[in-house]
Amino acid sequence: MDQVVLEDVLTQLRTALEVNDLISASSIIEALRPADQADLFWELDEEEQTALLPELNPADAADIFKELYDEDVVEIAEQLPLDTLVEIVNEMEPDEAADLLDDLEPEQAEAVLAKLKEAPEVKSLAHYPDDSAGGLMTSAYLTLWRRMTAQQAIDTIRDWRPDEETIYYLFVTDRLKRLLGVINLRQLIVADPATPIAEIMDTDVVYVYIDTDQEECADLMQRYDLLALPVVDENKVLLGVITIDDLVDVIQDEASEDIQRLGGAEPLDRGYLDTSILAITRKRIGWLLLLFITATLTGLVMDSFQDELAAMVALGIFIPMLIGTGGNAGSQTTATIIRAMALGDVDWHDAWHVCLHEIGIGLVLGLGMAVVTYGLAIIWVKDHQLALTVAVSIFGIVLWATGAGSLLPLLAARLGIDPTVVSGPVMSTMVDATGLFIYFTIARIILGL
Amino acid sequence: MDQVVLEDVLTQLRTALEVNDLISASSIIEALRPADQADLFWELDEEEQTALLPELNPADAADIFKELYDEDVVEIAEQLPLDTLVEIVNEMEPDEAADLLDDLEPEQAEAVLAKLKEAPEVKSLAHYPDDSAGGLMTSAYLTLWRRMTAQQAIDTIRDWRPDEETIYYLFVTDRLKRLLGVINLRQLIVADPATPIAEIMDTDVVYVYIDTDQEECADLMQRYDLLALPVVDENKVLLGVITIDDLVDVIQDEASEDIQRLGGAEPLDRGYLDTSILAITRKRIGWLLLLFITATLTGLVMDSFQDELAAMVALGIFIPMLIGTGGNAGSQTTATIIRAMALGDVDWHDAWHVCLHEIGIGLVLGLGMAVVTYGLAIIWVKDHQLALTVAVSIFGIVLWATGAGSLLPLLAARLGIDPTVVSGPVMSTMVDATGLFIYFTIARIILGL
Repeated sequence: MDQVVLEDVLTQLRTALEVNDLISASSIIEALRPADQADLFWELDEEEQTALLPELNPADAADIFKELYDEDVVEIAEQLPLDTLVEIVNEMEPDEAADLLDDLEPEQAEAVLAKLKEAPEVKSLAHYPDDSAGGLMTSAYLTLWRRMTAQQAIDTIRDWRPDEETIYYLFVTDRLKRLLGVINLRQLIVADPATPIAEIMDTDVVYVYIDTDQEECADLMQRYDLLALPVVDENKVLLGVITIDDLVDVIQDEASEDIQRLGGAEPLDRGYLDTSILAITRKRIGWLLLLFITATLTGLVMDSFQDELAAMVALGIFIPMLIGTGGNAGSQTTATIIRAMALGDVDWHDAWHVCLHEIGIGLVLGLGMAVVTYGLAIIWVKDHQLALTVAVSIFGIVLWATGAGSLLPLLAARLGIDPTVVSGPVMSTMVDATGLFIYFTIARIILGL
Repeated sequence: MDQVVLEDVLTQLRTALEVNDLISASSIIEALRPADQADLFWELDEEEQTALLPELNPADAADIFKELYDEDVVEIAEQLPLDTLVEIVNEMEPDEAADLLDDLEPEQAEAVLAKLKEAPEVKSLAHYPDDSAGGLMTSAYLTLWRRMTAQQAIDTIRDWRPDEETIYYLFVTDRLKRLLGVINLRQLIVADPATPIAEIMDTDVVYVYIDTDQEECADLMQRYDLLALPVVDENKVLLGVITIDDLVDVIQDEASEDIQRLGGAEPLDRGYLDTSILAITRKRIGWLLLLFITATLTGLVMDSFQDELAAMVALGIFIPMLIGTGGNAGSQTTATIIRAMALGDVDWHDAWHVCLHEIGIGLVLGLGMAVVTYGLAIIWVKDHQLALTVAVSIFGIVLWATGAGSLLPLLAARLGIDPTVVSGPVMSTMVDATGLFIYFTIARIILGL
């Protein structure tokens, strides 16, 4: 439904732009919701974009910037006249403005900052890394004093006219701006208007420090169903607030990164179709080459068992099946463990417990696979000893792959490496080489080669 | 920080339970936040859990149920006296109560329903599948009339004392309960108290139908930064509201499912360490067996090229490296495409565009890999023709894997199959067999075997 309507609007917009009717064009855009404005805007040519932006209401332009990928905003910003850009940045939330300035060329960022209304605020936010609490928080929030009454608090809010996303939790501080408590808008409305804030507020506040990682912030907000999370310094002085809309984006971004890394590619910085062929290739070729080179290990193992292979060519038939199964069993395990780690269900302290769990699973899975494999192999090659070799090998390979697959991501996290990086393809390549070694060794023993 | 404190509290709780001091035990639990209550509760033995629950405030027990995995709640509920269970269910949100009753044995569900305060509401919600808008929505929400003033609306809210999660958006309906507009609490507070609702409300409401899939609901809420999403029937009559806390859970659940399926395992229903070895094995063995059996295809290909292998044993050395690289290139592609589909960046209509994009990437990646491979192979086997065979094969395999890897998930989605199911391991197995075929065919041509 939405899709069809947007296409119609795009046609109208293009028609207006063709005759250079920028006023109609901007009123078409301004009638939409921000996410749709951004989609439509993105469909335009670069020239059309740069022509249209100065005509738009700066608040709408700021909304569009918020919805686009960071890299695209930078490209557009570089084409804009300085005054237009300053007007737009003035309308952005301080945390978003700081992120954008961080991405611009230093000279352009300086020039914008010099003309900005809230320059000191934006500047102070620009220090923090994007993926920390400091980088996520906004400095646009309202604090209340504990001696106010509920009615005074409501009046203050009415005067301040805050943005929607920053209003639902109000934080109470003392005169040194130290965080004392939190109160939500519902409590404020429901309370008797004469009650002092101190009697309504919740003093058991969940907060984070300025350098807390964004994933931990997201976990806390999800765990305690929070719409806003206060950020404090070591003296518990309130520095900013993280709001739920930023959290949802963090969760999606972290899941995107995990999924792409599990597939063995570096995550993309923007939408798939908007990323050039060369940029995507760059994100993939490093891993592909590294894995190929480590896969020479499998070649070395094959090479060192050439006599066995020559003595019994039928051994070779089962190689892709065996190493494929090892890779599959391993990636089933790593995917489960990585997700459990991301959800906070397990961490390094559970390593022993997890490993025992997976060895149990590996024993049952391996046994089941061995029975099926023996049946299949005996029908195929009609040789009891060869079938037994393949069956015992698959048992060993599955057991090894599940055990190793469970420890690898935990160990990586312990060493400070992103566990998704060592999983998926890295895991498969490792299991390929070791699986071959297991197979040929068992063949030597059982077949006496 | 949190972790340490919780461990201390657990020790206190256990001490109280050992001397059967249920009153101290329940006051220890009641002092915590719901997510922590649930964690602590889950650490107790089943006997302790069943003894403690009737002593807890039913509202706290309901919060604990909300935080636990569904399957665990059912196990606990089955042990509880009927009256205790009814008291707890009475405190749950209607949508959560409906989900729980759906999971219980029919007789127990009937017995609870017979004694429930809001039985008709819960019953009407129980019809809808868990993963549809109807299954996610709650029927506990407040509607306003368009002729009320802002002050009257605030007074209504004060009287109604709604839950926190349902208060931030208020929906305005006509007398037939048809949705007319939405107003948020911020607008209500900021407005002049005498203004009629009709003048403040936003009439351009984003809504979904009762059977809309939960993923689409999540996309809409994220796209438009909504804290609540109204659910209507075909006449636009308001039936319920989906709130942001449910959405965050949906996003995490969908990401978990995608990641586990990409790893080639069926998703788990509860926490990893809480799922038994046999239950996890059941989730994995089906795929492992299916993939093993389809991998016999690779065996058949190997078998049919036995003469070539016997003529040149060195050909075998490169098999694991070649099929490994094919699998890696394919899973890089599927992971990227699947994530782009989940984020709504691409769909079936872009298939042609996506495929061309990936063919471009495959050409560049394949060329790069071929150059490296030739260099590596010529050093290793010192045979120009064999090195050329391996290099040309890797070019063909990478090109084929990226092309097929891009179309497979789109095609699956088009056919109504979850794209993650056909990706990861399924993709690798397919690329293994076809990769071998490409390799041996090129070997025949170049080496004249």
